[in-house]
Amino acid sequence: MTTDRELKDAGEIEAFIDSIDTFLLDCDGVIWAGNTVFDGVPEALNYLRSKGKRLLFVTNNSTKSRASYLKKFQSLNLHATLDEIFGSAYAAAYYIAHQLNFPPTKKVYVIGMSGIQDELTSEGISSVGGSEDDDNLSDMADMASIKPDPSIGAVLLGFDLNINYKKLAKAFTYLHHDEGVHFLATNSDLTFPAGGTVYPGGFGTGALLAALSAPLDRKPVVLGKPHQTMLDVIVNKYHLDPQRTCMIGDRLDTDIAFGQHGGLKTLLVMTGVTSPKKLQESDIQPDRFIQGLANLKA
Amino acid sequence: MTTDRELKDAGEIEAFIDSIDTFLLDCDGVIWAGNTVFDGVPEALNYLRSKGKRLLFVTNNSTKSRASYLKKFQSLNLHATLDEIFGSAYAAAYYIAHQLNFPPTKKVYVIGMSGIQDELTSEGISSVGGSEDDDNLSDMADMASIKPDPSIGAVLLGFDLNINYKKLAKAFTYLHHDEGVHFLATNSDLTFPAGGTVYPGGFGTGALLAALSAPLDRKPVVLGKPHQTMLDVIVNKYHLDPQRTCMIGDRLDTDIAFGQHGGLKTLLVMTGVTSPKKLQESDIQPDRFIQGLANLKA
Repeated sequence: MTTDRELKDAGEIEAFIDSIDTFLLDCDGVIWAGNTVFDGVPEALNYLRSKGKRLLFVTNNSTKSRASYLKKFQSLNLHATLDEIFGSAYAAAYYIAHQLNFPPTKKVYVIGMSGIQDELTSEGISSVGGSEDDDNLSDMADMASIKPDPSIGAVLLGFDLNINYKKLAKAFTYLHHDEGVHFLATNSDLTFPAGGTVYPGGFGTGALLAALSAPLDRKPVVLGKPHQTMLDVIVNKYHLDPQRTCMIGDRLDTDIAFGQHGGLKTLLVMTGVTSPKKLQESDIQPDRFIQGLANLKA
Repeated sequence: MTTDRELKDAGEIEAFIDSIDTFLLDCDGVIWAGNTVFDGVPEALNYLRSKGKRLLFVTNNSTKSRASYLKKFQSLNLHATLDEIFGSAYAAAYYIAHQLNFPPTKKVYVIGMSGIQDELTSEGISSVGGSEDDDNLSDMADMASIKPDPSIGAVLLGFDLNINYKKLAKAFTYLHHDEGVHFLATNSDLTFPAGGTVYPGGFGTGALLAALSAPLDRKPVVLGKPHQTMLDVIVNKYHLDPQRTCMIGDRLDTDIAFGQHGGLKTLLVMTGVTSPKKLQESDIQPDRFIQGLANLKA
């Protein structure tokens, strides 16, 4: 039964922690719910740090750079460092800079908010688009102004509150005209995961991605959970040993599946979207589960 | 062989015309290419009218009302009447007004340009959205302003050059919150059909529709070719006898398939996208084909 796999006994918890060097942590449902940090979580995180564990907060939120995501931690009085933040915008920038052999003469065309271009700049990658293209075409005849551009080497799509026709048509044109142009996305979440409280509009990056993919006969490389390319980037950057790395999350189909596909240990917390019943019925089973992250500190 | 089915002989052409009461005509590739009317087409159309045939110009272009599409005919010095124009915006308005039993207290939320709302108004249907929502949300926190609205009875999506996050999030919210809200689209063309000359951006209604459909577990009713609902509307409105109705078009997978599924006679013209080789190899075979519409007049 699944109850055998609950991490509860103090000795077992210590042994589990000792077996791991790096913890990858989902945030919403694990560290906080909306804007409320779960009781005991700051202490548990500091306890792990005191035992020399590396922590990486892994987020699909592509609207923020690491620096700006760190501010969210600070606004919640939660200690973290820039090196501990690993967002999908940064994952995409790192992937382009270190894994794509991207020519220095080429640029990335960005659909997304400032976080993406900030991360590209920090990795030395030139980009265009983003807020520069917030002004839409003014009429149908302007469509003729959208032309292939040989200086574009990749299109990177993330969440963009200022999505418009010009951005979609430009990205489509670059990708449609030249198969050599890389097609990348920061994440593919169809809706916002914040439980309906923060974003009732709910319309996520994956929906914008569907618009761009539909008329193309191409699929993007996605740099967010649960796509393995994100994990490849993390493992590559930190030289992690998958056997001594643990993914902690509240979602079976994203967090836990993400860890398992990469050969990591997995730990489910019950403070998020997964009910005991859902856990019992699911095909996706974590190595262990625990009531909350706070329980990691005896 | 397919050559047997070429309509060439003057007597055969006359017999074919005599067997038909109503001709449904695709425009681009049949009547004109871009902004150039094919030689002999005005004469052929007038010849059909002189023989008492009803002509219906069937277009997926949802940006224009019938009145505004008629202006395109006039700008090309091509005679037509309002009653002869049948666009997907009008098809959607007619469908809502006459086939959906749409309550008079309800409104349609529109993503699209003025043509759609003009047609809804002409059919006595109230609508909101469209250009009223061209001003986007100003920041992420504004998403909280998007809420379900019980006065919305349908969401109708057509091509919208001013597509933005607010429109997509509103439409998503209405459709996601209440399964009773009808989900309609004027057409599902992924790209513009104008052969790349007019709209190199190329990004069509179907791509916007993919964004809206992706996070929903629902499929839209589509009021454009090749979807049969459009043909149902035409048959319903004009009380057509399918056996004495002919669809004329240049595309096998849209025009000809559209006519065949509805039990109409079909006539392919070779002035558009279908080459003789493509015709020979295709699984979709029209009843007859003809070099050009002009050849209908001996």
